[in-house]
Amino acid sequence: MWLNLSSIFRTLSHDPSVRAVVLTGSGDRAFTAGLDVQAASEGGTLTGAGPSDTARKANGIRRHILEFQSCITDLEKCEKPVIAVLHGVSFGLALDMSLACDIRVATSDARISVKEVDIGIAADIGTLSRLPHSVGNLSWVKDVALSARIFGAEEALRVGLVSSVYKDKKEAVDGALKLAALIASKSPVATLGTKEIINYSRDKPIVDGLNYTAVWNAAMLQTQDVKDAMLSGLQKRTPKFSKL
Amino acid sequence: MWLNLSSIFRTLSHDPSVRAVVLTGSGDRAFTAGLDVQAASEGGTLTGAGPSDTARKANGIRRHILEFQSCITDLEKCEKPVIAVLHGVSFGLALDMSLACDIRVATSDARISVKEVDIGIAADIGTLSRLPHSVGNLSWVKDVALSARIFGAEEALRVGLVSSVYKDKKEAVDGALKLAALIASKSPVATLGTKEIINYSRDKPIVDGLNYTAVWNAAMLQTQDVKDAMLSGLQKRTPKFSKL
Amino acid sequence: MWLNLSSIFRTLSHDPSVRAVVLTGSGDRAFTAGLDVQAASEGGTLTGAGPSDTARKANGIRRHILEFQSCITDLEKCEKPVIAVLHGVSFGLALDMSLACDIRVATSDARISVKEVDIGIAADIGTLSRLPHSVGNLSWVKDVALSARIFGAEEALRVGLVSSVYKDKKEAVDGALKLAALIASKSPVATLGTKEIINYSRDKPIVDGLNYTAVWNAAMLQTQDVKDAMLSGLQKRTPKFSKL
Amino acid sequence: MWLNLSSIFRTLSHDPSVRAVVLTGSGDRAFTAGLDVQAASEGGTLTGAGPSDTARKANGIRRHILEFQSCITDLEKCEKPVIAVLHGVSFGLALDMSLACDIRVATSDARISVKEVDIGIAADIGTLSRLPHSVGNLSWVKDVALSARIFGAEEALRVGLVSSVYKDKKEAVDGALKLAALIASKSPVATLGTKEIINYSRDKPIVDGLNYTAVWNAAMLQTQDVKDAMLSGLQKRTPKFSKL
Amino acid sequence: MWLNLSSIFRTLSHDPSVRAVVLTGSGDRAFTAGLDVQAASEGGTLTGAGPSDTARKANGIRRHILEFQSCITDLEKCEKPVIAVLHGVSFGLALDMSLACDIRVATSDARISVKEVDIGIAADIGTLSRLPHSVGNLSWVKDVALSARIFGAEEALRVGLVSSVYKDKKEAVDGALKLAALIASKSPVATLGTKEIINYSRDKPIVDGLNYTAVWNAAMLQTQDVKDAMLSGLQKRTPKFSKL
Amino acid sequence: MWLNLSSIFRTLSHDPSVRAVVLTGSGDRAFTAGLDVQAASEGGTLTGAGPSDTARKANGIRRHILEFQSCITDLEKCEKPVIAVLHGVSFGLALDMSLACDIRVATSDARISVKEVDIGIAADIGTLSRLPHSVGNLSWVKDVALSARIFGAEEALRVGLVSSVYKDKKEAVDGALKLAALIASKSPVATLGTKEIINYSRDKPIVDGLNYTAVWNAAMLQTQDVKDAMLSGLQKRTPKFSKL
Repeated sequence: MWLNLSSIFRTLSHDPSVRAVVLTGSGDRAFTAGLDVQAASEGGTLTGAGPSDTARKANGIRRHILEFQSCITDLEKCEKPVIAVLHGVSFGLALDMSLACDIRVATSDARISVKEVDIGIAADIGTLSRLPHSVGNLSWVKDVALSARIFGAEEALRVGLVSSVYKDKKEAVDGALKLAALIASKSPVATLGTKEIINYSRDKPIVDGLNYTAVWNAAMLQTQDVKDAMLSGLQKRTPKFSKL
Repeated sequence: MWLNLSSIFRTLSHDPSVRAVVLTGSGDRAFTAGLDVQAASEGGTLTGAGPSDTARKANGIRRHILEFQSCITDLEKCEKPVIAVLHGVSFGLALDMSLACDIRVATSDARISVKEVDIGIAADIGTLSRLPHSVGNLSWVKDVALSARIFGAEEALRVGLVSSVYKDKKEAVDGALKLAALIASKSPVATLGTKEIINYSRDKPIVDGLNYTAVWNAAMLQTQDVKDAMLSGLQKRTPKFSKL
Repeated sequence: MWLNLSSIFRTLSHDPSVRAVVLTGSGDRAFTAGLDVQAASEGGTLTGAGPSDTARKANGIRRHILEFQSCITDLEKCEKPVIAVLHGVSFGLALDMSLACDIRVATSDARISVKEVDIGIAADIGTLSRLPHSVGNLSWVKDVALSARIFGAEEALRVGLVSSVYKDKKEAVDGALKLAALIASKSPVATLGTKEIINYSRDKPIVDGLNYTAVWNAAMLQTQDVKDAMLSGLQKRTPKFSKL
Repeated sequence: MWLNLSSIFRTLSHDPSVRAVVLTGSGDRAFTAGLDVQAASEGGTLTGAGPSDTARKANGIRRHILEFQSCITDLEKCEKPVIAVLHGVSFGLALDMSLACDIRVATSDARISVKEVDIGIAADIGTLSRLPHSVGNLSWVKDVALSARIFGAEEALRVGLVSSVYKDKKEAVDGALKLAALIASKSPVATLGTKEIINYSRDKPIVDGLNYTAVWNAAMLQTQDVKDAMLSGLQKRTPKFSKL
Repeated sequence: MWLNLSSIFRTLSHDPSVRAVVLTGSGDRAFTAGLDVQAASEGGTLTGAGPSDTARKANGIRRHILEFQSCITDLEKCEKPVIAVLHGVSFGLALDMSLACDIRVATSDARISVKEVDIGIAADIGTLSRLPHSVGNLSWVKDVALSARIFGAEEALRVGLVSSVYKDKKEAVDGALKLAALIASKSPVATLGTKEIINYSRDKPIVDGLNYTAVWNAAMLQTQDVKDAMLSGLQKRTPKFSKL
Repeated sequence: MWLNLSSIFRTLSHDPSVRAVVLTGSGDRAFTAGLDVQAASEGGTLTGAGPSDTARKANGIRRHILEFQSCITDLEKCEKPVIAVLHGVSFGLALDMSLACDIRVATSDARISVKEVDIGIAADIGTLSRLPHSVGNLSWVKDVALSARIFGAEEALRVGLVSSVYKDKKEAVDGALKLAALIASKSPVATLGTKEIINYSRDKPIVDGLNYTAVWNAAMLQTQDVKDAMLSGLQKRTPKFSKL
């Protein structure tokens, strides 16, 4: 399934007809309840069945985690902005996935948890790496990651894990689609650059972010979109940008 | 104009009679509405008029952005704390500039926007690099940067873009000046170190920040100001520090 | 005293019977009022009494700060999660110490301040390095660090310096102990990994955090705790993990 | 072809029967003469045929370079040590490829060049990024990269680009195979760790390298290979390690 | 004088008629003997005459060093490749300056020294920062930097501080000019990119260097120079590139 | 023994009567043959005897490696320059130790090896992290680290692992003492700064190294040593510096 997800987002990333993506769970009950513990417990993949030598088993686990992370990171690498709608049960992989998205919104009934500690695991598909760069309250980050306690949408909004809360899934998806449509109405050159430069700068000193921005825009400012956008602005009409 | 701004802040930085700086827009209407699109659209500097070869044009744009960024970074490099008062229309360069300041306050009527996407541009004078290090809500950062939507002072306060909101510009400037006066009453050696170490640490692992602090204070703790400040504290009187 | 504190936390870190730690001040009045200015002013250690040569004095100060920082960093390095309860007067070293803890809670009467500027010093035992990585509101961080103004628990909660506020010290310690007990009921392998990976990732680009996680879990997923935790989950009973 | 190369090395990386890899050109004439300029000049892929908008063309080029680099980086990521034998004409991509290998040897007739400048390009498939981390003579690195001059095996040995020079291709391949066989006789757990930790440390401060090593070996020292290797050493016999 | 040097190199950097720069001392005796100790000892600028307060004096020294370093760094930032010819006495600032150049050559009579330790100073205008990234023999770097011993051109060549040695100054300048002419015959877009990417990559992990290269070349590969260079190559004639 | 070594170097670091340190093996036969495999194989500390749970055993190993590394890093942290004399058998820990020293010299009979791979281990006490930053020939680094082959002093000199080779141990120690005496005759403020800034810069981008240097020298240039050294230079007499 994760290889599928990756493949879908690699396609969306380069598909010229896509301008923004909304990701949510199917049905009302859950974004995802995370790992299927029953299956994992039977399959043994999680805990590295296979060779009996500890080091060889360790390398097998490492390969598996790296491959899994790489699938999720394809959401982050997608050239088009991705909006995650968290709703209902949003445990474990729900955070790994939504933290690799650009924007997170939630429904008021969302029940969110960094659940991995409850199955004896330090979350390893991205949550623990992305959370401290996404939420500016390190005490809260550790509180929920160490306790695995379930928290709601209002708390998520207050600490900055999500940027909007909607009454229910229908309204949340509507809201996300409206935001996606707004983003899709902008120059795709500008939104790609905005996403890329924020992600780069998040990980780097300011001085590096500035220099990268200058190199990035050296090409991107030469787009016809800038002229079209400025002219449309002056003429009070909506510009129409070609595909990326 | 940006070269002037830079020159002013380089002077303020070393001027011994300056202890803190308040930066705001003139008049009530706007901090700044950002780039003058009309002029830019006519002048063509933005989109790199000049050589017809794409690479040579790109290098001209790169030079131009780097020089522009460098002017704005002179606000950040100013040895004295700088407080920005955002009011009224605060678009585009308003954020580039105020994010290079140390403290941001706003009036309740402030209308703020990362406006660049609306003219087909990924903001390139600092906003996209400094915002993720100034506001701990990455979902919100991307929401406003990708959508260019206008937000108000209360939202800015809630997400941590500004640290205070005032009723109107008069009160905001009064508040900023009061804060500036408070800071100016402290040892200028201590405030310089505080600003410098926070900026250094923001960009670096904790362990590097700690070591830098130790090297910095190796000289700075030898100041007479420490003795004066401690003695004044014990004697319940206000110390007076010499200029920096 | 700081050497003692360090020694205690190095012991707690490796003591197999410890699963989580709560740190607070004794008595009701204060977590700590910070440096004893009277003593420091008489002893002269702060300002580097000793050799008269500026460089040699500087190196003495540097050694002293590095040693002091290293004691406080032992709280951060403690393998077991540490919860700080800020209450009453919480000045100066109160922040250096609690920012090296994992989770911060406060009582409603807490009066908190980055007090060092008031004695002519840029705080050098960790506050200025850890604050920008713990609180996602850089304007507020500089506001309080440059002004040394005293703020309360509600403000600390709003900006994300603490993650909970309690009515008084008794309730706060009860709350902290309850949280500690909850954390202590989880697999100590999982909580160690969670703390370690968050701290590593806080200081590094996402891609480095992900890779580190994979290497870390290559060994840690082989623990019996995962099997026990999953089985207990399926059987709806409380697992019991052996000591670390 | 590059996608094939990538696919081959991803297979070799995980193939349990592979312990070390030797990479060389077929025939005697060349490791590779680099890009086929004739084809590139006709095909236009190099210079980004496709959309006429400069920004969209730029993004197409960026995607193409990233994909190409990723193929070459799969040599570096290969879990098994890779030895490159440079011989005859070794231009352009010969360096991109061999710098992604672990060990480089050359024949005495090798004619090596960072050739890209001669076709108007700053080498972009890895040479300019890996060369300054592989050769400790930055003046020489820039000399050959800026001038595209052809240099021989002796010069490559003197500056440290290659670690051995052989009379001709036959002897070079023999030498490389002998070295590969020697490496293959060691514990594959130990050689994987050695490659991984050197690559990690090359890119990071010492303190990070040390910590990573400790986490890596926390699992890897638990291998049976250590016991077997030590026992064999004491008993003066050759250990035999199971596959990785 | 250093402000002049900086100003000259800022001009050369953007002057379209400049393609490469050769920097050497005037006369035969010396590249430079470094700081004029007599003058420095009288003027007192080196040791921070001025305010009597240690911290204020320290800040004055810091400002002075940063400004001085910035002048020398303008050699490194120059968009055109710079070749330094070390000859005769090449002490102290001779290394600070030539290490900020791209390529270093020497005459056989060059007498080189990291001389600063002999006047009680850790070299602070760049030598100690650039030397470990320019020469891959850290033991030798510390040997000469700690002892201030004078070494010759052959030793400099052997350890990789310079990439060529010439009989005397005339031949060295001829050699440097020949190399400069060769570089000047290449596409200025390609040489700028080559210099920029090597400098970037020298300071960063490989993965960052690769990504930066892709963004850089996204614009630069669109240059007419690539087509001209490839066509000239196929037609065996010398291309002529327009100015940068 | 390693705890003793650490303790000795922590004392040497702060002992005012020490100006430089020479480290060598006792006797003629060996610097060190590395780990006592017989003892390690019996004691089991290397391979993590103790708890049977893989994760708990892993954490025990991690603690042990970190503590061991920390002992060796105390050589690097020693404020006084340390010169290592490699002679005779110099295997395994001989490299871990000498790479943490500032300067390495060898006798012509030295037989050096990164021996760990031969006992199934990726060297974990520092060699693999420090070697790529000490020797600028990454191909050679991997060659010797992956093959564990024994190499001699001439090869070590050629690739830059050592900076001098002496006929035998007596001459090597004499040479090292002569160099130590030369270094000891310089200002201890200047040599401390030189060591510290080189180590800092080795691990960081140039721009960070430059800034750190300016902050470091802000205090250190205020030393009397600069005046004494300059005056002595002008008067052609030997300065005498007070202790550090």
